[in-house]
Amino acid sequence: MSGEWRVVTVAGVGLIGGSFALALRQAGFAGKIIGVSSPATVQAALERGAIDEALPLAEAAAQADVVYLAQPIARILDTLNVIDGAVRPGTLITDAGSTKRAIVERAGKTIKRGRFVGGHPMAGKEARGVEAADANLFRTRPYVLTGADAELERWIEKIGARMVKLDADEHDRRVALVSHLPQLLSTALASLIADHPEAAKVAGPAAADLTRLARSPYDIWRDIFSTNAEEIDLVLSDAIGRLQTLRENLQVDSDMQAIFARAAEAASQLRQS
Amino acid sequence: MSGEWRVVTVAGVGLIGGSFALALRQAGFAGKIIGVSSPATVQAALERGAIDEALPLAEAAAQADVVYLAQPIARILDTLNVIDGAVRPGTLITDAGSTKRAIVERAGKTIKRGRFVGGHPMAGKEARGVEAADANLFRTRPYVLTGADAELERWIEKIGARMVKLDADEHDRRVALVSHLPQLLSTALASLIADHPEAAKVAGPAAADLTRLARSPYDIWRDIFSTNAEEIDLVLSDAIGRLQTLRENLQVDSDMQAIFARAAEAASQLRQS
Repeated sequence: MSGEWRVVTVAGVGLIGGSFALALRQAGFAGKIIGVSSPATVQAALERGAIDEALPLAEAAAQADVVYLAQPIARILDTLNVIDGAVRPGTLITDAGSTKRAIVERAGKTIKRGRFVGGHPMAGKEARGVEAADANLFRTRPYVLTGADAELERWIEKIGARMVKLDADEHDRRVALVSHLPQLLSTALASLIADHPEAAKVAGPAAADLTRLARSPYDIWRDIFSTNAEEIDLVLSDAIGRLQTLRENLQVDSDMQAIFARAAEAASQLRQS
Repeated sequence: MSGEWRVVTVAGVGLIGGSFALALRQAGFAGKIIGVSSPATVQAALERGAIDEALPLAEAAAQADVVYLAQPIARILDTLNVIDGAVRPGTLITDAGSTKRAIVERAGKTIKRGRFVGGHPMAGKEARGVEAADANLFRTRPYVLTGADAELERWIEKIGARMVKLDADEHDRRVALVSHLPQLLSTALASLIADHPEAAKVAGPAAADLTRLARSPYDIWRDIFSTNAEEIDLVLSDAIGRLQTLRENLQVDSDMQAIFARAAEAASQLRQS
């Protein structure tokens, strides 16, 4: 079952949840959007025009054709423990969590009346909260789904995202490399610079570039590390190995030239896709 | 001796040399700027208004009150082997090379009639060549000098840069951390992503951010690696150790929180300085 959406419930109306709501509206969604969040957040979301009304989770879920979980990962896991009893049979439950294996496993155990399809829009920005929400946040970005739902896929297309279907394990393996490792490299560099404040005095654009991510708050990352530890361990090991290779070959001209050329090509392709 | 400049010779009129010439003009330099470069480059520099005329090195050096070497490092080392015979006694020779120890050592052996002060403006951008030159490129950026010269220091201030005096060893130690390590981290990440093209399909802004530097052409880096290998080896070793620490503590909440907080603070300070 995958009927047309009339009522969308967004649990966690921050940057991602708020942007999804605004993107639906901009793409022509004419139904009702209910927000579930703290009083301050729902107030901001109402003022921002992201949601039509705010309700407690159980009431919002009972009306919904789809429940969109855009909370931190640990909160999504908690919500999955209680939401199934609140939804009507066949209700789609989806999420926007940054890791998928733990969430899909939990949903497999708890979601029986509803149907769960995991999701992860590969989008974001520095500013957080519904104040920073943006109807175009998902445009041209990958949007991973761990399963199929015709109506959800239709809206992902309408909001301008590029759908990528992956199972949860494969998703977590890939984002360990392209999302979690970049964060840890940035944090590692910034923490080394913290040990050498005199060096910061001569920092140019390169250091600024590579440490931008290091300003990310840890509270987002705690859940990512605890739910994707195995894959992150593997990519950290790969990164250490690659840095060791660079170290050993620093003055082997042909080797370094080949590594730089291959890296530059991959970096350029990242920008075209 | 440090007289007022009437004739400035810029050897290597690319992004940095061209920007220095344009910055001098914008800051009120009323003398003559002579460019020394390949025929195509001097033509572009003349059209860009960066230089007043073009001459071969020996003729340009003979007229100059200051010779500004903005070539690649290996070319600067070559130029230092021949320039001293061409300049008038007391002429200031300075450079903009990305490493300083090898250059200052070479100048110590070869510059006798002239006086050498090493320099390194911590500025740059993706585009190269005099076409991308910008009179404001050095504004608010650190500009390292390895020695003293009143007139040079006066112009560095006038073009809006922040002068930092360091000996060559200390410069090379600091830039290994804040310039060379960021490049190698970016190259390492991009080269890992090159091994996993399927992962690139779900890359978001984090991967784009961290791999921007990886597109830098190797020809710039060859000279940096060969003239700063020892310091780069040390910072690569530190980076590997830090990544190992992150790996071992990935799920030790209090440790990771402390590392993230310290890194975020350093990253924020980099942006204020």
